[in-house]
Amino acid sequence: MVNPTAAMLVIGDEILSGRTRDANMHYLAGELAKHGIDLREVRMVSDDEAAIIGAVQVLSAAYDHVFTSGGIGPTHDDITADCIAKAFDAHLGVRDDARAILQAHYDTQGLEMNEDRLRMARIPEGAALIENPVSAAPGFTLGNVHVMAGVPLIFQSMVASVMPTLTGGQPVLSQTLRVFRGEGEIAGPLRVLAEAYADLSVGCYPFQKDGAFGANIVIRGTDGARIDAAMTELAKELEQ
Amino acid sequence: MVNPTAAMLVIGDEILSGRTRDANMHYLAGELAKHGIDLREVRMVSDDEAAIIGAVQVLSAAYDHVFTSGGIGPTHDDITADCIAKAFDAHLGVRDDARAILQAHYDTQGLEMNEDRLRMARIPEGAALIENPVSAAPGFTLGNVHVMAGVPLIFQSMVASVMPTLTGGQPVLSQTLRVFRGEGEIAGPLRVLAEAYADLSVGCYPFQKDGAFGANIVIRGTDGARIDAAMTELAKELEQ
Repeated sequence: MVNPTAAMLVIGDEILSGRTRDANMHYLAGELAKHGIDLREVRMVSDDEAAIIGAVQVLSAAYDHVFTSGGIGPTHDDITADCIAKAFDAHLGVRDDARAILQAHYDTQGLEMNEDRLRMARIPEGAALIENPVSAAPGFTLGNVHVMAGVPLIFQSMVASVMPTLTGGQPVLSQTLRVFRGEGEIAGPLRVLAEAYADLSVGCYPFQKDGAFGANIVIRGTDGARIDAAMTELAKELEQ
Repeated sequence: MVNPTAAMLVIGDEILSGRTRDANMHYLAGELAKHGIDLREVRMVSDDEAAIIGAVQVLSAAYDHVFTSGGIGPTHDDITADCIAKAFDAHLGVRDDARAILQAHYDTQGLEMNEDRLRMARIPEGAALIENPVSAAPGFTLGNVHVMAGVPLIFQSMVASVMPTLTGGQPVLSQTLRVFRGEGEIAGPLRVLAEAYADLSVGCYPFQKDGAFGANIVIRGTDGARIDAAMTELAKELEQ
């Protein structure tokens, strides 16, 4: 079985300007790995209509799923819903189910619905809502594109809402061996191992800690027994 | 004057698998903003030849500068130099200047040069070396593509080496107003302000803190006096 593939599109000037450090990509990557969905590519673009439309069209055609974060609030710089609708030539209008969710939320909070808040009830025709238990305003799934908020707490709650609706694959398992030897010294044995276990992914990630060089060797795959076998062989090899 | 544009390509399975949280993008974004170079797009791909070659060709054609991180070490999964050379049809071979830098480093450390370490002296023909004060093995600039290491400390030292060689633009300045009001309430005045100051970027970034909703309103641009004027108008407007 081949696992489904995915891409992520992070939308927002605040990320590219260096003001905000994105946290959603790392969170989503971990959740997708658990569900056996392979995250193959991430793109980050600013609040620019052409950039968003272009990226979402390319990624939607290339991968089984696309997850977006950012740009679905009520302010003038929130243009994601408009861009997604344009990208797939879908009508965008206020939808009754989304409006009802927002109205109930504002009623509880003693807030007035206004024109700007109502913008968050605009959902492309044919989309399914993604529940937002944190602040009510829903995300949506249109085709294979899952459109979610940028605020990390809300993003995470939307990921939790959408994940059970997706068909996953085999979770990717991994084991790590941490060695305090330079990469240049272990590269030979690692190359031999990676060739012998071509069905697994063998990665080597160097680090420096307190002036010493070391590396985390990570073996990844969907077959736990194969990973065990490769790791045992590696440990034996590097002991010599 | 229009500022130069840039893109970043983050290369590595460890980022997409969720194992490692990328730190280089946020660092580079901050440095570029200081130098007046506009970071317009970021892509993250795995250690996959076709993905790396495809992304670097597209980004190199679309932007003034491309910065890559990751995949230039000595192990089998370090394929970035090979991919960059292929992307621009440049010969890749061990270069004497790079080999001399590595040899001097290993001599100091009492280590032997071996075949794997020598891989790090392979530099595409026509490239300029990027100095690496941390661990010697150089990065390189080929055309408008700056190829750097993935380990954050080394990446940062390479950015420091390459940045003075680039022609910058006007640094992007910003001012932030933090308000404890919901986005739906301030969206109207913000929209008016953004239209009146179309030469500036007005962003609204919501947050939740201890159960309260708020937003950081960020006004960005290259003209400090204009930002002052917009911020004064905004503060007055939101006081009412």
